[in-house]
Amino acid sequence: MHVQNDGVEKVTIIGSGPAGWTAAIYAARANLQPLVFEGMPTQTPSIQLPGGQLMLTTEVENYPGFPDGVTGPQMMEQFKKQALRFGTRVESKNVGCCDFSRRPFELCIDGEPGRVVRSHAVIIATGASANWLGLENEMRLARTGGGVSACAVCDGALPIFRNQPLAVVGGGDTAMEEASYLLKFASKVYVIHRRHELRASKIMQARILNHPHAEVVWDSVVVDVLGGDKVAGVRLKNVKTGQQFDLAVKGLFVAIGHTPNTQFLEGSGLALDEKGYIKTTDGFRTWTHIEGVFAAGDVCDKIYRQAVTAAGMGCKAAIDAERWLAEKGVH
Amino acid sequence: MHVQNDGVEKVTIIGSGPAGWTAAIYAARANLQPLVFEGMPTQTPSIQLPGGQLMLTTEVENYPGFPDGVTGPQMMEQFKKQALRFGTRVESKNVGCCDFSRRPFELCIDGEPGRVVRSHAVIIATGASANWLGLENEMRLARTGGGVSACAVCDGALPIFRNQPLAVVGGGDTAMEEASYLLKFASKVYVIHRRHELRASKIMQARILNHPHAEVVWDSVVVDVLGGDKVAGVRLKNVKTGQQFDLAVKGLFVAIGHTPNTQFLEGSGLALDEKGYIKTTDGFRTWTHIEGVFAAGDVCDKIYRQAVTAAGMGCKAAIDAERWLAEKGVH
Repeated sequence: MHVQNDGVEKVTIIGSGPAGWTAAIYAARANLQPLVFEGMPTQTPSIQLPGGQLMLTTEVENYPGFPDGVTGPQMMEQFKKQALRFGTRVESKNVGCCDFSRRPFELCIDGEPGRVVRSHAVIIATGASANWLGLENEMRLARTGGGVSACAVCDGALPIFRNQPLAVVGGGDTAMEEASYLLKFASKVYVIHRRHELRASKIMQARILNHPHAEVVWDSVVVDVLGGDKVAGVRLKNVKTGQQFDLAVKGLFVAIGHTPNTQFLEGSGLALDEKGYIKTTDGFRTWTHIEGVFAAGDVCDKIYRQAVTAAGMGCKAAIDAERWLAEKGVH
Repeated sequence: MHVQNDGVEKVTIIGSGPAGWTAAIYAARANLQPLVFEGMPTQTPSIQLPGGQLMLTTEVENYPGFPDGVTGPQMMEQFKKQALRFGTRVESKNVGCCDFSRRPFELCIDGEPGRVVRSHAVIIATGASANWLGLENEMRLARTGGGVSACAVCDGALPIFRNQPLAVVGGGDTAMEEASYLLKFASKVYVIHRRHELRASKIMQARILNHPHAEVVWDSVVVDVLGGDKVAGVRLKNVKTGQQFDLAVKGLFVAIGHTPNTQFLEGSGLALDEKGYIKTTDGFRTWTHIEGVFAAGDVCDKIYRQAVTAAGMGCKAAIDAERWLAEKGVH
């Protein structure tokens, strides 16, 4: 595998959130001339939204280095600028499929039927998308920082939520963790769940059920988010009685899971877990079971999902890829 | 362990590099009012230098978010400012010892014989120190960005090293990795090793020994670094013949290992590995074998040692600590 420049990429990075751009910064500085497929811009949140989940985030207060905060899109612009500075090449396209059974690996590109991108190493950093209820007001208020969020750790400490009644939708461990986190700030936290039983573990349930400021609203679904610029409440429907009623809350945290953006990996040969996340073979590294394929960020993280954790993994992926390529004699 | 505010800290963070401050940002935003022991300022690189290794770094080009670069000390000032903004308390003192056999944990503070800090959770982020040769010119040129470095991934891509002859000191895997990385930029890389045999693995050795632009200088030690503002060469001594000779290089990369800053953990009950690094029990998490003790950054990382990887782990440690405290009923 001693290869000269023959139209084969050294490393191709798929995705353009914090993990993808950080991998690009490190790979570019290591003289690997990385090619980034940042995804195709669309009007609606798409599978491979350029910039990732942060493009839906107004204020980021917890990415270290920005003491006065920064907006998600501004931050991703800085990351991208830094990657470009060191010679990263960027295409605003989606990768449609991968074949990791061949070496070099082969990628096909959406909208370019004849094209095959060949690459010695591939870093997958396509992230995960929060699942949303799919209500119009929900999406509008999520995009404008109006009080709808899918991440309590990211947004729970914002002033608009302090000492206010808030709602969390969901019944799993994540929903309980979100509620538990928000109880530090909120005057009251309603957990809205469509069944009469929580899926969360007993210990997580107990934490919420026994908390004086938490209340579970059973058998109910959110049918609308109320409010103009800011959340003023949620309209709920009891799924057993069909009755609708409003709850006055200043924030809605949607905690009904995430979907990793790995649909394009179908048929690639890369093993995914039962939820579609990429499995890494060593928690500390970014190796997958296929040598030369590395994963970073939310596409393989069900636990933390933070910009800085994704960035850290992007850095690791580039270093892992650089060392692997050097071992293989690809310079 | 249902505790009110009784003088017991919820979470105490030891260390003030990227991992420590990021843990503080996240812990503070989670309303845990973290207490950070940032270490005592000294004139010489000390065990718990406030700000960590980055205080010795002039230009940081690879921390994502700063496309125009930033100096290490400036960056750490931003991190600290952000932690303070959300209510972190900081003491410029060294933790002298820890007792993790009691709960709450007990910490003693250097220079304050009577004081005991009690804390439910502790995050250790004291980092590791690069080992240096101990030469006066070496340290001076390392601190001023004059061409002496202990990290090729951090500094190798800087313009001063491009197409120049460089030297790496060391004979282990890390030294070979540093040399291999630098060969992307340098006109020539000398590996200076005091023995006639490398300790590095065969594959790593082969990478260097077979490279047309690499040369191993056997049986030799660096006795001086030459140059005023910038490295102009190194003075070597052959340990077998005693003969001295100069090598014209524009950069010196010292790769003779790191020492994790864990001396203060002696007797604490926390298990360290044979090199003194803290062992985490799951590579993806920051848990140690003692519940409530978390580790982040270079103090448990022998592989990557980057600001952004340390920051990512600091974030993880705060989230892990927050969830653990919530489970234990500490609010």
